[in-house]
Amino acid sequence: SVNPDLASERQTASFSVEKLTAWLDGGVEQTQLRRAVVEAIERDPVFSRENQYFQSQNERYEAAVRKAVHLQKKMQEMGWSENGPEFKYIYRAVAGDIAFLLHRVFMRSVSMLGSDEQIAKWIPLASQYQLIGSYAQTELGHGTYLQGLETTAVFDVTTQEFILNTPKISAMKWWPGDMGRSATHTVVFAQLYVHGKCYGIHPFIVQIRSLQDHSLCPGIIAGDIGPKMNFEHVDNGYLMLQNVRIPRENMLNKFCEVQPDGTYVRRGSQKINYFTMTLVRISLISGEAVLPLMKACTIAIRYSAVRRQSKLKPGEQEAKILDYQTQQEKLLPQLASAYAFHFIDNYLQELFNRGYREIQRENFDTLPELHALSSGFKAMVTQHCTSGVEICLRACGGHGYSLLSGLPSLYTKIIASCIYEGENTILLLQTARFLIKCFMAASTGQPVPPSVIYLAAAKPGNCPAKNKLDFLHPDIYTEAYQHVAVRLISSTAAKLQDLIQSGVKKHDAWNRCTVQLVQAAKAHCHYITVKNFAETVEKIETKAGIQKIMKHLCDLFALYGIFSNTGFFLHDGYLSGAQMDMVTASYLDLLALIRKDAVPLVDAFDLTDKSLNSALGSYDGQVYQRLYEWAQKSPTNKQISPAYGKYLKPLLHNRLSKL
Amino acid sequence: SVNPDLASERQTASFSVEKLTAWLDGGVEQTQLRRAVVEAIERDPVFSRENQYFQSQNERYEAAVRKAVHLQKKMQEMGWSENGPEFKYIYRAVAGDIAFLLHRVFMRSVSMLGSDEQIAKWIPLASQYQLIGSYAQTELGHGTYLQGLETTAVFDVTTQEFILNTPKISAMKWWPGDMGRSATHTVVFAQLYVHGKCYGIHPFIVQIRSLQDHSLCPGIIAGDIGPKMNFEHVDNGYLMLQNVRIPRENMLNKFCEVQPDGTYVRRGSQKINYFTMTLVRISLISGEAVLPLMKACTIAIRYSAVRRQSKLKPGEQEAKILDYQTQQEKLLPQLASAYAFHFIDNYLQELFNRGYREIQRENFDTLPELHALSSGFKAMVTQHCTSGVEICLRACGGHGYSLLSGLPSLYTKIIASCIYEGENTILLLQTARFLIKCFMAASTGQPVPPSVIYLAAAKPGNCPAKNKLDFLHPDIYTEAYQHVAVRLISSTAAKLQDLIQSGVKKHDAWNRCTVQLVQAAKAHCHYITVKNFAETVEKIETKAGIQKIMKHLCDLFALYGIFSNTGFFLHDGYLSGAQMDMVTASYLDLLALIRKDAVPLVDAFDLTDKSLNSALGSYDGQVYQRLYEWAQKSPTNKQISPAYGKYLKPLLHNRLSKL
Repeated sequence: SVNPDLASERQTASFSVEKLTAWLDGGVEQTQLRRAVVEAIERDPVFSRENQYFQSQNERYEAAVRKAVHLQKKMQEMGWSENGPEFKYIYRAVAGDIAFLLHRVFMRSVSMLGSDEQIAKWIPLASQYQLIGSYAQTELGHGTYLQGLETTAVFDVTTQEFILNTPKISAMKWWPGDMGRSATHTVVFAQLYVHGKCYGIHPFIVQIRSLQDHSLCPGIIAGDIGPKMNFEHVDNGYLMLQNVRIPRENMLNKFCEVQPDGTYVRRGSQKINYFTMTLVRISLISGEAVLPLMKACTIAIRYSAVRRQSKLKPGEQEAKILDYQTQQEKLLPQLASAYAFHFIDNYLQELFNRGYREIQRENFDTLPELHALSSGFKAMVTQHCTSGVEICLRACGGHGYSLLSGLPSLYTKIIASCIYEGENTILLLQTARFLIKCFMAASTGQPVPPSVIYLAAAKPGNCPAKNKLDFLHPDIYTEAYQHVAVRLISSTAAKLQDLIQSGVKKHDAWNRCTVQLVQAAKAHCHYITVKNFAETVEKIETKAGIQKIMKHLCDLFALYGIFSNTGFFLHDGYLSGAQMDMVTASYLDLLALIRKDAVPLVDAFDLTDKSLNSALGSYDGQVYQRLYEWAQKSPTNKQISPAYGKYLKPLLHNRLSKL
Repeated sequence: SVNPDLASERQTASFSVEKLTAWLDGGVEQTQLRRAVVEAIERDPVFSRENQYFQSQNERYEAAVRKAVHLQKKMQEMGWSENGPEFKYIYRAVAGDIAFLLHRVFMRSVSMLGSDEQIAKWIPLASQYQLIGSYAQTELGHGTYLQGLETTAVFDVTTQEFILNTPKISAMKWWPGDMGRSATHTVVFAQLYVHGKCYGIHPFIVQIRSLQDHSLCPGIIAGDIGPKMNFEHVDNGYLMLQNVRIPRENMLNKFCEVQPDGTYVRRGSQKINYFTMTLVRISLISGEAVLPLMKACTIAIRYSAVRRQSKLKPGEQEAKILDYQTQQEKLLPQLASAYAFHFIDNYLQELFNRGYREIQRENFDTLPELHALSSGFKAMVTQHCTSGVEICLRACGGHGYSLLSGLPSLYTKIIASCIYEGENTILLLQTARFLIKCFMAASTGQPVPPSVIYLAAAKPGNCPAKNKLDFLHPDIYTEAYQHVAVRLISSTAAKLQDLIQSGVKKHDAWNRCTVQLVQAAKAHCHYITVKNFAETVEKIETKAGIQKIMKHLCDLFALYGIFSNTGFFLHDGYLSGAQMDMVTASYLDLLALIRKDAVPLVDAFDLTDKSLNSALGSYDGQVYQRLYEWAQKSPTNKQISPAYGKYLKPLLHNRLSKL
């Protein structure tokens, strides 16, 4: 039965939860499809995550492999395919807790970087799992800076082979998933040498384990890199190569080839590779950042409607903690952010699809903008979602700290998204480089991509708001965000130029501006997010109840951003102190307003109990009962600890001096 | 051998590391004593943490018990005592990874709350480990709000016993350490009922496990609460009581007693209990918050001096990541914070000692200030240190995410300090209540405690700084912090009064100001921290090199706080936008300056490799070699996974359709 404290929250929803869910999914049909996939997966005991919080790294890995193998069967059974409409929901339903994700990257690499013959040879083997692939790029000593990779591949013209080596310990491949224990093959990125000349980084297919007995191939040293903060289910691996010889045909050669005599030939444009990076960054936003934040919000908000602690008014019942302003101020901005980032994900998907159509017509003009936005938003969204999950965890007090709440594992996983696929600071600096370039172009009247046209059209003047209600006008706050973005970009551009003009070398000058460049890139992304949220709300036409609550959330997201970054808006007087007080007043009013719909707003994410895997966040709100039941299943309660016989009993039965 | 990239950092130190260490320790003798204790502990293989990152919860628990028992022996052997000068270093040396900490709380409770007879009976038993104690206060449904605890203790006048019960699931004791598997006895806090009347929360000694065979006593249901984000070594437990009868003598009765006929007698002042809470909060700051931040800084800064990635200037060697401004901006403010909080810890210790002397003279006047400051600083310091550790973790990129870096376990442990011993938001609101009260008193000319006298003496006017160098004057920035604290406290007090005067009920009005009250409390603590840092630096007289670098760190800490909270300073024009640009310029200059001494500054914390337990942070900087060596010891490399035989082999050897 549903906890009455949670049931009552649902009775007063100002909108139709089911309609909001369908709108978020992109239509009723999508909702139905998603639910069908989720149900099929969750009904299957192989995919159960029931004991996940009790498992060791070895057990998590074994389970992930079992699930991955079973998923192949399941997909055949259900008639699902990798390119089918169900696929995005499958990954969501298994909660990412599955092996062979790098096997897919292996296949994508071969498809993107391989010649037609190479594709014809390797892809059928891989898709039939006659080999298990991985992708070995990162080394102990190099992550972001690919040019610095130290693995070598020397062409031996006499045997028509490449000889791969790990020349020093920092060159050891480190982190590749599926490689520590599973993979038989991997794509190795190495510096290509022909006749003593270095041609830079190239991809090579290398077999690392026997297809017969899985033993390591000659010259291969490989294993698992050990315990991590999360991702215990993935066998991230290390790989050392000692004079490993592979045939000439194993260099992936769509874009360049070493001919039998050692002649190096380059062909076609590699720009498409940038496009892949862009795709990966955009596609991780939804599943790896926004979804975990939605889960954390669901858990923390439902729990806060059920948890009662202390009294708001003497003589009354203890209050739901969601009724405390400080608790609202922790959770509701995260809820608004989850919506904001869901919408920015839609925006990026659309931008990407447009760009893809252009690229298919061999028009690469949109690439710089796409690259800059995908980098900046990957950084901004993963950063905000990570903080958001942490806030949710801490807002649940002690119980949030229990793994059984589901929150620690969400946090320890999402924090990795700030690092992988481009470390966030470096990504923001790439966005900043694009912004500075566009700003310079715009200021000399040259054309710039659509998302940065505002840099050319910046208007002077201050914020016209006269009272706190004015700050509920999207025009007012969107312009404030725009103003800040322009100011930060232009002032940093000016600082950069001043430094260079005063004789500082270009690279030094850039380094000395990077803290401010990062701020500028964030401000740009923040502005686009607010603007996109406001435009999304405006486009909702028919469903009145939904538009109204979305408008409130949009206002909250915008004012939360101002409230937590007041200095940016006050710096040049665009907002006055008095106006900032109005922002604060409106912001706090919104908290109390949205609080009423908080539970329906997380219900609309439509996350099943199994997908939340949380004793605190279940739909029925029976948190204490569930914590107790789950704790009893813990391995710590499954046996009498050897510690009793070995240490406690002797301690208790003897005087201390006899120990 | 030391990595040359780290060795070179040490050759250019602008001060004597050894002298700074001694100064931080409080004198050369303290340094010697600390090193002797640490060495004795670390040389003993029982205390080894070598395999910690590979252990399961069961293994961590067993190791913690083994260490706790062994520590008793060790202390006898070494002639150390619980009250000796060595004790604070012992806990530091074992890195907290030890059982029976709650046994100590059990003993402290008996000593504080028990009568002389009770002390005479229980303390010898406990100190000889003829019982193992715990402390059962928190319940599933109640943490912070003690009055809401639901466990009952009903006095049965006929048998002269108390009957203890857990009336509903939310009343189950939950979280007490040492209780899940170890304890034989525990202090249970329960609502006392005599003749049907409730007298509120009282402490009772309850035996929960047999001293003979450790089986649960009749009416007791107890066990371990399962997996947590960290603290796997502690058996946090649950406890349900079903008509458990204990003799009348088991109610701890220093302050109140139930006489044989059921008469309830209260005696003495319980104010001393507040004092205990204060003591606990102050004493956790050093070991549970500042020390982990020092460790994280040591790891991240040493690694950043060894890690080279990408080029600052084309044609040069790849740069140390510590040379990037963005990396400096992540790490160096955390380093400055570690120093700032070390000094605030000294400040609080001194305040506490003064207060203690007064209390011994039955003068309780200092209690409110002590309570307010210990609450606020517990919250502020744990919050900043937690963020700081997270920043350090993320600043180490992928390798920071490996447990072998030591950073994940520092993070997952320190985050709990934001919740235990008073949830931080609630603590800050207690500080705020004190500040509002003092502000009101000061504004009507009444006397206020020393730490808040500034509230009465606030001067109008703006910041007089004229160029960026002016912001290196402690007077300038300390006054800016003071101004902000006064403004936030006074404006929130005004809002509170306005609301009440407009007819809002007092409790509602308070709730509607809590977001701003939290800001005000933080601003107060931040101001005191800056002021105390500046005063500490000023008092260093002889050791010139140390004073100079400490002055830089103080400046950095102060300007970092302004740079990250610009809005507070700009809001009423106390700082202008132009002045804020000067702050930014000085702040960024300081980063480049302090970077030169960054490694010596963490070396001065004098943390051994064993205490860091980090593949990235060791003194010799051989990070890649160590990551590789440690990874090979992982259980994931100790066996061939059953996953191969069960799933991978059938997959690879059969066509998919046969699966």
